[in-house]
Amino acid sequence: MQKSAELKLAVRDYECDLQGVVNNAVYQNYLEHARHEFLKGNGIHFAVLASEGINLVVTRIELDYRASLVSGDEFVIQTRLEQVSRLRFAFHQTIIRTSDNTTMLDAVVTGSGVNASGKPFLPQSLLALMADMSA
Amino acid sequence: MQKSAELKLAVRDYECDLQGVVNNAVYQNYLEHARHEFLKGNGIHFAVLASEGINLVVTRIELDYRASLVSGDEFVIQTRLEQVSRLRFAFHQTIIRTSDNTTMLDAVVTGSGVNASGKPFLPQSLLALMADMSA
Amino acid sequence: MQKSAELKLAVRDYECDLQGVVNNAVYQNYLEHARHEFLKGNGIHFAVLASEGINLVVTRIELDYRASLVSGDEFVIQTRLEQVSRLRFAFHQTIIRTSDNTTMLDAVVTGSGVNASGKPFLPQSLLALMADMSA
Amino acid sequence: MQKSAELKLAVRDYECDLQGVVNNAVYQNYLEHARHEFLKGNGIHFAVLASEGINLVVTRIELDYRASLVSGDEFVIQTRLEQVSRLRFAFHQTIIRTSDNTTMLDAVVTGSGVNASGKPFLPQSLLALMADMSA
Repeated sequence: MQKSAELKLAVRDYECDLQGVVNNAVYQNYLEHARHEFLKGNGIHFAVLASEGINLVVTRIELDYRASLVSGDEFVIQTRLEQVSRLRFAFHQTIIRTSDNTTMLDAVVTGSGVNASGKPFLPQSLLALMADMSA
Repeated sequence: MQKSAELKLAVRDYECDLQGVVNNAVYQNYLEHARHEFLKGNGIHFAVLASEGINLVVTRIELDYRASLVSGDEFVIQTRLEQVSRLRFAFHQTIIRTSDNTTMLDAVVTGSGVNASGKPFLPQSLLALMADMSA
Repeated sequence: MQKSAELKLAVRDYECDLQGVVNNAVYQNYLEHARHEFLKGNGIHFAVLASEGINLVVTRIELDYRASLVSGDEFVIQTRLEQVSRLRFAFHQTIIRTSDNTTMLDAVVTGSGVNASGKPFLPQSLLALMADMSA
Repeated sequence: MQKSAELKLAVRDYECDLQGVVNNAVYQNYLEHARHEFLKGNGIHFAVLASEGINLVVTRIELDYRASLVSGDEFVIQTRLEQVSRLRFAFHQTIIRTSDNTTMLDAVVTGSGVNASGKPFLPQSLLALMADMSA
């Protein structure tokens, strides 16, 4: 079990827009990928859950854009998971440029889960992980 | 001058992910497109500004995901602009599914601008637009 | 039944990359969307088929890039369907800039289908459509 | 100087579509990224060239889709560069799934370059690289 995780990525040119910087929406791709990798590192496979009809869903995202990643930048995504209520989780995520340790973006991603019948539901594996986090 | 604007779009299949719904990041694409269309409808061309070294930049995004768009859904994006300080603007945006008038997402997108020398700057056209908005 | 179809779209700014033009990969998004709209106009719903385990799959794409779409460009995608063998179809697609009728891209997209057991399979509705096309 | 290059990547969940596989257009993202990394490894920076008004442009792409990458798959992109005429280059690229060495996609990407005045042009660095390739 990891209390938090770091994922190292680099900007790909197709992620940059006509301003010459990474497009705002692409940061959500980065963050989602980091969350899924974090979960996978703890034995929770997003795609497998989805194929079983269990969908983790984001209900709210707050993104503070502090500086812009550009072509060639390497960066680290820090991901930390917290349980905020019985059926609600929050990921705290930060993107840091490797070259100078600058924080580029802070994010809080709140979510919940639904099962195949559309009822609020979090898989036992995720509940156990969150309990470990707060231990 | 439009005080607010509505843009009508429809989900494209490539925007859906393995959960079978529009991927969370794609909503930012929709919202950005609606903002740029809103500005264009008021004579402010994002790409032209960018080519002149004037970049409108998002500093904070809050997204409340209320329900998921799926393949084939038609929807409307409502966009309203507000001046929040001398050099800061906010867009209030809502995505509404056409078939049943359900609100799918609410967003507040705060931003500012920088000129070619990297100094905080909003183009006169945008300042004038915001003044008209609050009139 | 339509022998061919035209879909009218416009470039969205987030589709442009750091060269200031629509990124090469985005044309595939346009073409896929036009194919799915063409099929839908003929009663064949890609997403519904996928949910039933019937997947139409592309096996080969040839794209000739003739000129670059830029921010704000409006364009038309022409789509024509042809049966090339018992289990194989080809879409002939052309993207034309509206302002001056310039051909921006020509494409041939060949594909087939597989059913839920992974066997080569084309839905009867598509076979009937292709028969009508060649009639 | 590398005669060819291998780039190792893994599928990210947001790259998968409602068929549960990597969307066809995303392979072009992978291939573009691999080409730019290959060039960068040889001292040619795509984004820097673009900022100087020198744009390498793709004129034709042929993609043979042989099998579908899915969530979690690791893969290698092999990239080889060839000069096909004075002002024309071709990249031969193959995507191979790591787990079982299966070829997922073969591609030939032909292109040229234009300078700031829109004239056909290839940078000396690229011409030298291609000469070395054929040596």
